[in-house]
Formats: sequence, structure tokens, C-alpha cells
Amino acid sequence: MRLNRRIVLARRARGIPQDDDFHLEEVPAEEPGDGEVLVRHSHIGLAPAGWIRMSEETGGYPLRTEVGSAIYSAAVGEVVVSHDPELPVGTTTISIDGGWQSYAIGDRSSLTAVDTSRAAAPVWLGLLGISGFTAYAALRWAGAAKVGDVIVVSSAAGAVGSAAVQFAKGWGCRVIGIAGGPEKCHFVTEKLGADECLDYTSPQFADRLALACPAGVDLYLDNVGGPVRDAVWPLMAPGGAVMVCGQINEYSTAADSGGPNWYPIMAKTLRLQGINWSQYWDRYPEFVAAVLPALEAGTVRPLEHLVSGLENAPAAFRGLLEGKYLGKVVVEL
Amino acid sequence: MRLNRRIVLARRARGIPQDDDFHLEEVPAEEPGDGEVLVRHSHIGLAPAGWIRMSEETGGYPLRTEVGSAIYSAAVGEVVVSHDPELPVGTTTISIDGGWQSYAIGDRSSLTAVDTSRAAAPVWLGLLGISGFTAYAALRWAGAAKVGDVIVVSSAAGAVGSAAVQFAKGWGCRVIGIAGGPEKCHFVTEKLGADECLDYTSPQFADRLALACPAGVDLYLDNVGGPVRDAVWPLMAPGGAVMVCGQINEYSTAADSGGPNWYPIMAKTLRLQGINWSQYWDRYPEFVAAVLPALEAGTVRPLEHLVSGLENAPAAFRGLLEGKYLGKVVVEL
Repeated sequence: MRLNRRIVLARRARGIPQDDDFHLEEVPAEEPGDGEVLVRHSHIGLAPAGWIRMSEETGGYPLRTEVGSAIYSAAVGEVVVSHDPELPVGTTTISIDGGWQSYAIGDRSSLTAVDTSRAAAPVWLGLLGISGFTAYAALRWAGAAKVGDVIVVSSAAGAVGSAAVQFAKGWGCRVIGIAGGPEKCHFVTEKLGADECLDYTSPQFADRLALACPAGVDLYLDNVGGPVRDAVWPLMAPGGAVMVCGQINEYSTAADSGGPNWYPIMAKTLRLQGINWSQYWDRYPEFVAAVLPALEAGTVRPLEHLVSGLENAPAAFRGLLEGKYLGKVVVEL
Repeated sequence: MRLNRRIVLARRARGIPQDDDFHLEEVPAEEPGDGEVLVRHSHIGLAPAGWIRMSEETGGYPLRTEVGSAIYSAAVGEVVVSHDPELPVGTTTISIDGGWQSYAIGDRSSLTAVDTSRAAAPVWLGLLGISGFTAYAALRWAGAAKVGDVIVVSSAAGAVGSAAVQFAKGWGCRVIGIAGGPEKCHFVTEKLGADECLDYTSPQFADRLALACPAGVDLYLDNVGGPVRDAVWPLMAPGGAVMVCGQINEYSTAADSGGPNWYPIMAKTLRLQGINWSQYWDRYPEFVAAVLPALEAGTVRPLEHLVSGLENAPAAFRGLLEGKYLGKVVVEL
């Protein structure tokens, strides 16, 4: 019998998740039904969306993790039992909702076969996974980035941001990153290739950002909301767009904190759009076809923070929410 | 010699325009150059955009009326001198920027020939003019309204709103108007055909609006910003869109008042878009081809508030900004 080691939601979180919100347990792995397969996970990718789904208040977010269910995440794994000839035993897959567990049931709607000889498993959770895909969909498809656009990326050293910076540079955009602290900013310019990176913890942040964007901001990838957004907002260029991919600053304060005045939306004919990767998921193969060769050619680089052992996922998750790491946080099982 | 009677900007406005911001003068009409024509105006259409353009602070709005220039407005008139064979003497035109004056120079880029035998001159400034066009572009092209959508329209008895309500009803949408006072609300339901209309001056406004939209709001045409917008915002349905056509509540307070938290933009994957009719103007013939037959068939009705005499434009303009009238405010010269 296969034992499924998993971390389930013990109680709904209020604010940053606490140890008592999680419960580590071992249960027999389920048997896949018709058309389903059983996947043994090798890696799970931690995502802020997991926090929203486990929280008491989801503020209109449509998906929720129930108490007793595995915490939400994407995962890479190998098919070990198959009732679908298109996903035979031995296939390596990414699962969009595998969760914090060693085994999961999936089918063609949730699993995509990937080639770990071309990119290592953690990369399929980061640059080539939902994080990179979100950045690509936001900037390229929803944001319609153009050569020469001035693009500002918040959380530029994070999983989505680090991909966004590199994609936009590859398209010939001027890219201004925003990150917390000089070390991250250095990484964003030196390793990811951003033209500039501004440290939002600096008292001169807003002034420096304005100096970095003298002709305004064409496209802003907003991963955070809050004061960082408030500094970018007055710099938006006429006809500019904001892709709202994350609002980590607002997750626990949705009812309280406000946003900026809407007058510029009209005056500058701005466009704001909430991005959820699932809206674009049918274009995932197109994304892989574009990004995997660039990765193999070395023009974009993957970026993960690896953590070992499922039992360390809660602490790593808190670290992610506190902005401690560079790139995608991946737990090796 | 033709005398051009006009009202020019005497000084930049701060807040609601005062009498001393305007100057009525008579000057010789200019002579049109090559490819230009001289138009004698019969009607001008007052527009809140005129207020922004004449104000001290335009908050990023790209167009500005200079001191000494005629106040901005569209106008209907007749070509009286022509240096363009496609706009011969006698042609009736609408001018997108004719201004508060009895004569104006124009050319093909600013003038469109219209047929006043099919719709009276004031209608070409209201339902068939920039106001109706803005409503149509916002809901149909930018908003992609679908049959059965729940559409909320603020300033529903105004020039843009009254057109929006009728267009959306014609497309099979459920339409909830918002207006100030029971009289306007009665008009919006009884004469314009809205399913409901909520009075924003009522203390029960937000509660009644929520009751009117139990499944949420798919599309919100925002003409006002401010507290009305704040009541609609929490009701937005997942995947919903806000077309920001006007922010009259914010024109004089752009620097001070805030907006709502952005978390729902991400959580509900909302889309917000600032609308300016000029972005869509090349599709004006398509709009006329769709709306003029409906007008002639009586399925949509024009709505204007007529004022006589250029000298009465400033008072009528203030009345417009204070929400005193139903429909498009048109000054007959």
C-alpha cells in the first residue's frame, strides 16, 4: 500500500498562516478511477494563491481549500498508476493543483506531460511553470507588451517577477524592477538584466522610481498592491496598462486599505486587468514552445529556492509570504 | 464680414467654473485655408470634458483649452465657405471640437457630414453624437456586452447614461440605472426602459443596489466615480468589467480622495478601462448605421435639454455639472 504523506488545512488561516493551521498526516493513497492516474510527487511549488485559498476571508477569490484537504500548489511528479493510455506509467507531469502531498490523483485536465531532460523538475514549477506562465500571459497576451515599452515589475526577484523581467528584456522593453533591499535589487539588475531596480524599502523609493521612468510607465506588472503600487500609479503613461497578478500587500487587509483615485483611469485612458493563469491555460504549450528554447540557449535563466522535505513546507511558505527568497520556492519531497 | 460670437476661457478654472472664468466676445470669423471650411454653428453640445480642459489641474488629461480659446464642445453647423469639394457649402456637419462659438474652421479630420432630415440637429450632439457614441463604444466595443449581462449605468439620466441604458436594453441585457432623486429614477425606468433605477441620494442606496444585482454586476459604466462607484464595486461579478467614462465626482478632488482596494481586481479577475470616444472615432459611421435606424423605428429615444442663446451657456454648463438636467445639454445659437 502506498502511503500519502500530506499537509492538510487544519483550520482556516487568519493573516499569515500559523503552525496550527497545518496538519501533517499519512493516509493511504487513493486509487485512480477511469481516465485518471496516480502521480507520485517529487517537487511541489509554493504559491501565494495557496494562502488565499486557505484563508478565512478569500475576498471574492473563487477557489478555496477546505479544512482536511491538502494545501493548494502545483507539483511535478511521475505517473505510477495509469488508467489513461495518454498518460502512461513513467510519464513526468506537472499538475496544476497537485497540492502539498506525496501522491495525487489527476487526469488530462489537471496534468501536462513535461520533459525533464530539457529542464529540471523545479524549473517546471518556476520559469516554465505557472509562475513564468503568469508573467508571460500578463505581459504578452493581456498586456500586449511592445518593443520599447517601459515596463515596471514589482516583486522583481520573486517567482513571477523574475520571469517577467527576463521575458520583457528579451522583447526589447525597458524594464524597471522593484524589490526589497539592495541585495535583491543587485540580483535583478546583474543576474536578470533589468535596466534598473528600485528598493522599495528606501525612503527615496518613489522619487527614484520617477527618475527611472521620465516618460512614464507603459505597463506595470503588479504583484503586491499597497504602497509600491501607489508609487507607480502617478507615473502611468497615457494609454498605459496595469496587470494585477498579485496583491500580497492586501491579502490580509482587503476590507481596510484603499486604492488610488480613479480619475487617471479616465484621464489617461488606462487599462487595469486582473490576471489568473487559468484563463490562459490552453495556451500553455505555446508558452513552453517560446520559453524552453530560450532557456536552453541560456538567454533566460531559471530561479528557484529549494527546500527539502514536506515537513518544512509551512516555514518556507511563511518565508515566501515575508519575501525572504529569490525566485520560486520549491519543496523537494 | 462675419462676426464670430464666442465664449473663451478668461482664466483657468478652479473647481466649478465661475462667471469670471468665461469671456464673451465678438471677433471677425477666420478665413479657412486650403482643405478647410468655415462652419456656422446652429447648436453646441455641453460636455463635462470641457470642464477638465479649462481647469487649472487636468490631472493627466491630455487636452487643454488655453486662455483666449473657445471653450471645448462638439457642435452642429452648416458649411458656409468651403475649400474642400467633399464638404461643399450647405453641408450640415458635426464638429468634434467646434467650441462655444458661432463660427469655426474645420476640415475632414474634425467634421462629419450628417443628415438632419433623419434626425434633428440636437440629436446629433446627444444620442447620435459623442455622448451616445461614448456609451456605445464603452459597452459594445470595449466592454463586449453580452446578452443577459447585468449592466449598471451611473448618471443614467445623463447624456451618456441615457444612451447606455437604451442600447443595453436593446441588446437583451438586464440594466440597472443609478440617478439622483426619484424623479430622474422614474424617468430612467419608465421612459428609458431600465429594469430598475436606484436613487443614490437615498440612505438605502447601497442595500437596494445589492438587492437589485443578486448575481453581481457584469459590466459597470462609471460616469461619476466616488461613493456611487464605491457601492457598485463590491458587487462586481467574477470576470466583470468597469468602463470608466467619466469621474465627475473626482474632477476637483483628484489629489485627495481615494479609490477602493485593488484586491478584487486580482481575486475576481476584473477589467477596468478608461474610455475616450476619440480612440474609437473611426468607427463612428458603424455606430450611426446601427443607431439611426433604431431611432427612426422608435426603439431608442433621443434626450436633450435645450437652452437658447450662447450667453446662457455658462449657467447651463454649471447646471450640467450639478446634475440638474435630463439628457444632453444643447445650446441653440
